Amino acid sequence: MKTRAAIAVEPNKPLVIEEIDLEGPKAGEVLVEIMATGICHTDAYTLEGKDSEGIFPSVLGHEGAGIVREVGPGVTSVEPGDHVIPLYTAECRQCKTCLSQKSNLCTSVRATQGKGVMPDGTSRFSWKGKPLAHYMGCSTFSNFTVLSEYSVAKIRKDAPFDKACYIGCGVTTGVGAVVWTAGVEPGADVAVFGLGGIGLNVIQGAKLVGADKIIGVDINPAREGIAREFGMTDFVNAKEIGAGNVVDAVIGLTDGGADYSFDCTGNTDVMRQALECCHRGWGESIIIGVAEAGKEISTRPFQLVTGRVWKGTAFGGARGRTDTPKIVDWYMDKKIQIDPLITNTMPLEDINKAFDLMHEGKSIRSVVVY
Amino acid sequence: MKTRAAIAVEPNKPLVIEEIDLEGPKAGEVLVEIMATGICHTDAYTLEGKDSEGIFPSVLGHEGAGIVREVGPGVTSVEPGDHVIPLYTAECRQCKTCLSQKSNLCTSVRATQGKGVMPDGTSRFSWKGKPLAHYMGCSTFSNFTVLSEYSVAKIRKDAPFDKACYIGCGVTTGVGAVVWTAGVEPGADVAVFGLGGIGLNVIQGAKLVGADKIIGVDINPAREGIAREFGMTDFVNAKEIGAGNVVDAVIGLTDGGADYSFDCTGNTDVMRQALECCHRGWGESIIIGVAEAGKEISTRPFQLVTGRVWKGTAFGGARGRTDTPKIVDWYMDKKIQIDPLITNTMPLEDINKAFDLMHEGKSIRSVVVY
Repeated sequence: MKTRAAIAVEPNKPLVIEEIDLEGPKAGEVLVEIMATGICHTDAYTLEGKDSEGIFPSVLGHEGAGIVREVGPGVTSVEPGDHVIPLYTAECRQCKTCLSQKSNLCTSVRATQGKGVMPDGTSRFSWKGKPLAHYMGCSTFSNFTVLSEYSVAKIRKDAPFDKACYIGCGVTTGVGAVVWTAGVEPGADVAVFGLGGIGLNVIQGAKLVGADKIIGVDINPAREGIAREFGMTDFVNAKEIGAGNVVDAVIGLTDGGADYSFDCTGNTDVMRQALECCHRGWGESIIIGVAEAGKEISTRPFQLVTGRVWKGTAFGGARGRTDTPKIVDWYMDKKIQIDPLITNTMPLEDINKAFDLMHEGKSIRSVVVY
Repeated sequence: MKTRAAIAVEPNKPLVIEEIDLEGPKAGEVLVEIMATGICHTDAYTLEGKDSEGIFPSVLGHEGAGIVREVGPGVTSVEPGDHVIPLYTAECRQCKTCLSQKSNLCTSVRATQGKGVMPDGTSRFSWKGKPLAHYMGCSTFSNFTVLSEYSVAKIRKDAPFDKACYIGCGVTTGVGAVVWTAGVEPGADVAVFGLGGIGLNVIQGAKLVGADKIIGVDINPAREGIAREFGMTDFVNAKEIGAGNVVDAVIGLTDGGADYSFDCTGNTDVMRQALECCHRGWGESIIIGVAEAGKEISTRPFQLVTGRVWKGTAFGGARGRTDTPKIVDWYMDKKIQIDPLITNTMPLEDINKAFDLMHEGKSIRSVVVY
């Protein structure tokens, strides 16, 4: 079949919107009509050629929502008409990692996903007779796409696609880091470094689970307003007080340190601050942000020996098929907000504007509606 | 009263064995007759002037066992005749940390302990009319010593002092790191870096809780024999294969990485290996070794984002008064071994020989019996 898509032809060039060819789903695969897709920093990271595993030409996009239109042989978990969120973190429920019950980093389709192909080693996309690579197992910048059955989460049908798509990455990453990776308990004091889209989702996750102090740290005071709307109780302006004073500021606001801290900046110096502002004895710091290639985190081992814990999270620790639908419910039940975070909506033709808005810091999240 | 003690007069000088003066216990304090004391690397570290908080002259020693001889006003948890292990990690059961139930790092006597005095701000020891500093709240290199009530664990009376003393530091640090800090479960694969006294205790802790693979890593092949006796299943000779190949060796032995790893070396480069040999998704690395002043640990944040956890432990995460007696029981029930680790026993007069044996690598643990 034919489908309209935004093609990443080569690094640092605008996406090209054209009609491409899509093969139908093979065994264990599903064809999904993408109804909406968010544009995430990770797409930009790959488009800019910073991802050493990035492949061109390809169909980017990993934060979508849509409707199953066709299923391949052997697919039992979804059927045509089901509403789904594509998952860049699959959940097969039978690999060593899924069965460990300790991690959401399912390995079932990981190897081929990283190579831009389906589990059988081939691509379903082609353009001008040549294959186009898949991306993160999703490729939501195409109106129709093919995914592994393990890479779609079935969600309720009354959730609006243009909001639910954000649950495919940003919302789950932030809220899930609080709920599943950290397991923040009611009454805990939380510090959130970086008040972009992920940071705001961490904040509302912390509010959801009943945290006491929810301290936001950013160099941009313009973020304070919306962060308070999402549940932030205290703001630390890192630029104003100076980076060297941030740790003490958080410790001062929390009677000895945060019970949990979250880095949503990707800056390794900030990651260290996030660890060191944690409470002696039990404070846990969770790295969410993706650091620049080659950058390393450091601290004195004394920080860990005296009880602090350093962790990271991917997709918020959420098991894709099991937990993503819960977040959709929380949104529909108004336990979390998404609407104020979707600052821009546009047709596929304007997708390159979404990247511009992101780089100019003018959007929290742009969404393409097909 | 008078008591015989080994005095640390100044850094890098042999201890001086002399009779010193000891005041009786004040409110909340107990007088303990030390029957035996181990000599630990931490004592040597302080004696060598490497501890920036080290105080001279002082009475070192923190790994003892003895008998309560007198209690001060208000003491209710022990009485004269009770057998006890002095605790450098107190347990008051009422500070913020104890009540958190998340950490063993009780803060009740921490501030004064760090200054070499009792909680009222004064020392009970004096020599030639001048005060001598206490050490780690214990000062077990004195035949009689005074401690906070919160700093003694009451133990069973049939445990031999010359073995039980080792539970006051090394045994609990190693076994506890497995049992309480890591919470290793049956069937887990464990990697232990450094097969000195702590490493051997980590190994027997891992065996106690039913670990599958227990991999020991050391540069000294002479440790292999005793490590196997304690439960090690596989030995990695880091010198032979080269430091750069240790991570891959452990990953190869464990189908993807260790579920838990423990650094017992204090070397920050080894700490990194210990983290990076952990299994993607859930592997936890626990730092036990004390690093040189100024040294830092580093890694790529990707290691944490893909599910590894970096932690530390002090006194094995054991709550001093609650958990130490359990380890005494495990020893008496032959669930763990101590006897083969006590390689040398001597009277107080020969305590300087214990430091020599340690530095020459000729002892695992030396014990002074009073």
